[in-house]
Amino acid sequence: MHRLALMLEYDGSAFAGAQLQPERRTVQGTLEAAWTEFTSEDRRVRFAGRTDTGVHARGQVATLDTETDHDAATVRSALNHFLPDDLAVRAVTEVAPAFDARRHATSRVYQYVIEDGRTRSPLSRQHAWQVRPRLDAGAMAEAASRLPLEERDWAAFGGPTPEDYPTVRLLQRSELRRTAPHRIEYTIAASGFLPHQVRRTAGALAEVGRGALTPDQFADLIDGPPGSAGPAAPPQGLTMLHVHYPPGAVDWTAGCAGDGTEEI
Amino acid sequence: MHRLALMLEYDGSAFAGAQLQPERRTVQGTLEAAWTEFTSEDRRVRFAGRTDTGVHARGQVATLDTETDHDAATVRSALNHFLPDDLAVRAVTEVAPAFDARRHATSRVYQYVIEDGRTRSPLSRQHAWQVRPRLDAGAMAEAASRLPLEERDWAAFGGPTPEDYPTVRLLQRSELRRTAPHRIEYTIAASGFLPHQVRRTAGALAEVGRGALTPDQFADLIDGPPGSAGPAAPPQGLTMLHVHYPPGAVDWTAGCAGDGTEEI
Repeated sequence: MHRLALMLEYDGSAFAGAQLQPERRTVQGTLEAAWTEFTSEDRRVRFAGRTDTGVHARGQVATLDTETDHDAATVRSALNHFLPDDLAVRAVTEVAPAFDARRHATSRVYQYVIEDGRTRSPLSRQHAWQVRPRLDAGAMAEAASRLPLEERDWAAFGGPTPEDYPTVRLLQRSELRRTAPHRIEYTIAASGFLPHQVRRTAGALAEVGRGALTPDQFADLIDGPPGSAGPAAPPQGLTMLHVHYPPGAVDWTAGCAGDGTEEI
Repeated sequence: MHRLALMLEYDGSAFAGAQLQPERRTVQGTLEAAWTEFTSEDRRVRFAGRTDTGVHARGQVATLDTETDHDAATVRSALNHFLPDDLAVRAVTEVAPAFDARRHATSRVYQYVIEDGRTRSPLSRQHAWQVRPRLDAGAMAEAASRLPLEERDWAAFGGPTPEDYPTVRLLQRSELRRTAPHRIEYTIAASGFLPHQVRRTAGALAEVGRGALTPDQFADLIDGPPGSAGPAAPPQGLTMLHVHYPPGAVDWTAGCAGDGTEEI
């Protein structure tokens, strides 16, 4: 038995999220069906992290086990043949049998895009949160930089979670900038995120941009009660960019490298 | 009676082109229906230029005549209320009764996007031509720069056209560059274009990128028989960016400016 790691890109618009759900079109269900078409094996896929309905990915990582001996390039091209247009495998590589895409991840990098043009934009409607009026990106950047890059409790930015759900995470990066006249990109990285954490963070940053919160007030949100920061920004602005692992755990250049290797 | 000019953005993926066609979903039909919903007037829209099925626009210009006296801001917001998600009005302004969006245009600017990553990309599948293997963007840039910025006959790059169709146009700009590791953007501007001219030009540039044509051979295509240059690249990579008019003909800042005014 071999364990394969797959790097996935998907347009989340028409998926009911990553995780398998009965009667819904999910990334997992679609990928497992393509695997069965390719190999006749019936396998469970595991993800580095869940993504909600409408959330996109450029570097989601999934694993599955197989008894087949296809090389990585064959797996990639065969899966891309069977997968629909809105889901693709960027890279495939074999990993150790004990490799766990979720538990072994050391960093997850997400991007949230806000557009604040004067009119809605048809061309980016499924890939940005479109807001009006124009936001104060300087204040938002200041606020984003005030989140502590340290290990601490993020429950205030989390959605509803089960009791005993661990809410301590190491924040690694929190940077916001205006990258075009009406486009704001927020990049956030952490050891892991609570459900809805990135969207609640982006939603609170937009409140700063509107002048409803000062950067100081934003920075204080972290001390609020669970789920108090937000509101959650909508899913279409969010993209899971990369998942990082300890050196040697996943060598994307070993199998058949995807295009993303230079940016990982 | 007032003549209004509208600046339009649309995602061409689900439109059978700009021009009205019976039983098909077109930009014109959709816009005229929204106008009727808003004003109860039954009006014909005229465009600066046709766009084919699947081709996008950020700065298409349309005109229509009205007996209503709504101000530009009201027209814009009302139309954006009635229009579907994939079509929006970015700006509205009143123009002279004799203004002709097509005949008075002095320059049309189009962009063609090619992605040459190793795998197909779900996130840009409707907004770029995805090709493999990787293209030689240096040779393509050299070829693009060899098109003469002058008034001459472009029939070789045109699609099938009626007899007596004028094929002389003034080329104003032809620039190609790699803007990201796997993204190539080609910008071309002219007094006007023949049907399929931009797509045939992009298709021929891709032949240069593949090594099937040298920049010299590309430059010689212009002297070939009508319709001999190409093949036509697919529509989803193409976006109509801007239409320019003589100074004073259309003042987008006079009515209610769209966001694009700084880039026009």
